[in-house]
Amino acid sequence: MTSTQLSNQLSLSEFLQLPETKPASEYIDGKVYQKPMPKGKHSRLQTRFSAEINKVAEPERIALAFTELRCTFGGRSIVPDISVFTWSNIPLDEDGEIENTFSIAPNWTIEILSPEQSPTRVINNILFCLNHGTELGWLIDPKEKMIMTFKPGQQPQMKQEEDLLPVLEVLSGWEVSVPDVFACLSLN
Amino acid sequence: MTSTQLSNQLSLSEFLQLPETKPASEYIDGKVYQKPMPKGKHSRLQTRFSAEINKVAEPERIALAFTELRCTFGGRSIVPDISVFTWSNIPLDEDGEIENTFSIAPNWTIEILSPEQSPTRVINNILFCLNHGTELGWLIDPKEKMIMTFKPGQQPQMKQEEDLLPVLEVLSGWEVSVPDVFACLSLN
Repeated sequence: MTSTQLSNQLSLSEFLQLPETKPASEYIDGKVYQKPMPKGKHSRLQTRFSAEINKVAEPERIALAFTELRCTFGGRSIVPDISVFTWSNIPLDEDGEIENTFSIAPNWTIEILSPEQSPTRVINNILFCLNHGTELGWLIDPKEKMIMTFKPGQQPQMKQEEDLLPVLEVLSGWEVSVPDVFACLSLN
Repeated sequence: MTSTQLSNQLSLSEFLQLPETKPASEYIDGKVYQKPMPKGKHSRLQTRFSAEINKVAEPERIALAFTELRCTFGGRSIVPDISVFTWSNIPLDEDGEIENTFSIAPNWTIEILSPEQSPTRVINNILFCLNHGTELGWLIDPKEKMIMTFKPGQQPQMKQEEDLLPVLEVLSGWEVSVPDVFACLSLN
């Protein structure tokens, strides 16, 4: 149930022609890995925190958060748990609607660690994003209640307890702390 | 079996007076965590790679690698799987012998990920070392055959396949690749 390697015989374009799987599959360095099936905490954090971002970022057309959006760039096709694009980066089709295909790195990539998931592979995807234009990466560990934050060219930081978290620069002014993120796991 | 939190009621000096446990316990942010029991791959990598370092570094009195050495600094007491100290950093007692107590950060910290271990906590320890003078950190993932490398103030790098690995600057000239590290797992 860890990101399962399904095949290693495909080109990226062959991979992109396959039907989508559930959970989504990712194409990384010529190999196909299926993401783990999200469980309760993962699903709750993904749903709630993407909504929180949009509550702040959408009304003023600053940015949009997407869950389970396929992003294909730099020879990989990955599906971050949450990907955030600044408004001007969101690809639109001829009708001015959101494109189905995203061929750029998100501005902010957020991954939520599942118990059976390979942390090394998840961090590998975050580093790959940083190397392709992503400004900010978060790795949320629901079990440890810690969040590792990544910026290009910088040492990662570990946020825990009452720490404030870095957000996209276009959202600066929005204060989010570690407890704010994990609060949604308690249903009081 | 993940790094188990044993207690949260001790000061560092109280912790240091407790008898050593097996596997070793670490004191981190006021809490005590026991390391997981090393399994076959972990033990083999730890034993073999520390010997490899010493084969290169000891004859010319450049550095020494230690396994399971307690290092107490910056308010934490941690036990990296392998810690490497440059020769002049190794604390000596009045008789010129190696001290029992190491109160400094290793120059190079190497952790080997166990399946049941919290990767977040392990990376947290590596980042802590970097913030206290450690020049180089490695996180070896035997399952994925990948090694994440850390330097202070820099974005981590993911090494895999045939990649060469960064080593301590005093050991530059020593070429170690990812396959060199994992080769010891096959007994051919």
